Amino acid sequence: MAVYTDVAADELAEFLSRYDIGELLSYKGIAEGVENSNFLLHTTAGYFILTLYEKRVAKGDLPFFLGLMTHLAGHGINCPQPVPNKDGEALSTLAGRPVAIITFLEGVWPRKPNAAHCAGVGQALAKMHLAGRDFGMTRANALSVSGWRPLFEQASSRADELQHGLRAFIGAELDHLENNVWPGNLPKNLPQGVIHADLFPDNVFFLGERVSGIIDFTFACNDMLAYDVAICLNAWCFESDHSYNVTKGRSLLHAYAQMRPLSRGECDALPLLARGAALRF
Amino acid sequence: MAVYTDVAADELAEFLSRYDIGELLSYKGIAEGVENSNFLLHTTAGYFILTLYEKRVAKGDLPFFLGLMTHLAGHGINCPQPVPNKDGEALSTLAGRPVAIITFLEGVWPRKPNAAHCAGVGQALAKMHLAGRDFGMTRANALSVSGWRPLFEQASSRADELQHGLRAFIGAELDHLENNVWPGNLPKNLPQGVIHADLFPDNVFFLGERVSGIIDFTFACNDMLAYDVAICLNAWCFESDHSYNVTKGRSLLHAYAQMRPLSRGECDALPLLARGAALRF
Repeated sequence: MAVYTDVAADELAEFLSRYDIGELLSYKGIAEGVENSNFLLHTTAGYFILTLYEKRVAKGDLPFFLGLMTHLAGHGINCPQPVPNKDGEALSTLAGRPVAIITFLEGVWPRKPNAAHCAGVGQALAKMHLAGRDFGMTRANALSVSGWRPLFEQASSRADELQHGLRAFIGAELDHLENNVWPGNLPKNLPQGVIHADLFPDNVFFLGERVSGIIDFTFACNDMLAYDVAICLNAWCFESDHSYNVTKGRSLLHAYAQMRPLSRGECDALPLLARGAALRF
Repeated sequence: MAVYTDVAADELAEFLSRYDIGELLSYKGIAEGVENSNFLLHTTAGYFILTLYEKRVAKGDLPFFLGLMTHLAGHGINCPQPVPNKDGEALSTLAGRPVAIITFLEGVWPRKPNAAHCAGVGQALAKMHLAGRDFGMTRANALSVSGWRPLFEQASSRADELQHGLRAFIGAELDHLENNVWPGNLPKNLPQGVIHADLFPDNVFFLGERVSGIIDFTFACNDMLAYDVAICLNAWCFESDHSYNVTKGRSLLHAYAQMRPLSRGECDALPLLARGAALRF
């Protein structure tokens, strides 16, 4: 939650002269995102977000993320829209880092989602899945099962500092899922497509109880669509005492299924998908 | 450079209902300030800054800071203006902390100030000193000479991690200034008034080379006006190789003196004031 790279005002003003978005009036580093540095820009043409992609993001993935946002916005999804510069490029370089400017979305994210918010995110997720069907690019999910052990090995020596026994618990869970349970025990031929893969509450904006936009596509990839549903169930439908709120879960699933019905295989797979999603996050 | 306290959207919306500044559209934590948590608010009435005052700021000082901004803004100084709530109060409570809403100022701060910027800050500082003359409240400078040793003692054991010999260097400098040099060797009766006491480049906004506003009054206090000039000379007129840029210094002093002439005693005092300011920061 920080700005990793500062940008000087004159450097930014010069950079913006390559865009058709007016003169710089002000900019603030915003305390959001754990992967990148983000600035809220105000120019004579309006408000924009400028993102400097830091090292953790593979530069080769950026055309996928930016292309996806452009595609989704063009298909009626309320998401940030990359702003091309005068050369027509959405991706360029600033302060030695890949950089993009995207449109600013109004809205606030719900710290305590209610059932109406869960319905909103369910519907928005289904719409995104449908809008993503004819997107031409693909990206493998770098954080599917094969990516979990390297993450575990990086952090496992300190897991017990968070909670006694956590290292052994995660290790056993990982052993279990790796042992041909994921994907071995999942139904074959679950529908695949472009998934958001990180649709936590801080990535969904609302005005009242209406979704005003979804943001942060830096984990988007191709994977089972129902896995995205499972991530959302975990992220939106549990209470602070770790209990599952059935009302919120039904609300999310019902709203999703109204836009895109879940197959029998997808419904059957949800418990295991949610178990994997819990481990991944 | 962080947001120390998060505020939930519904809590913030409820809080804003006590103000006449419209409905909440969005808010972002901004990565500025080392003392407080700051959010940029967008409402149907415009843009505002919401500040949650964290523990390092004494609650009893807040009426001085807010009263000063209101006073200065009322006397033609471009600075944030506290926004009173429907009860006429600029200061209230949110998330268990004192909170204030102030107006948003456009502009960017110069990472590499040039002589024109130095003239701008010199003029703005003098105008602030003049406008502060009839402000009715007072606040002692908690970080004058008697405040330096406690700060040193908190941090001295790690000073040599930054630079070999720094602990001994600062200790000797502090011994020297405490030994009745400050204020003993300063001219008597230097003009006193309200000073900003932290007018570094990140606290002065420009649009082009014109000052659009000065911000962050959380160190403002009553002290020698020339001490504020010395702080600015240190903060604005040295190069990255630590050399003093005479052109920038003259530019700052000349612009200041056009608004408020410096007395002979103030000019004589500047080297010692700058030495004290260097130690304080």
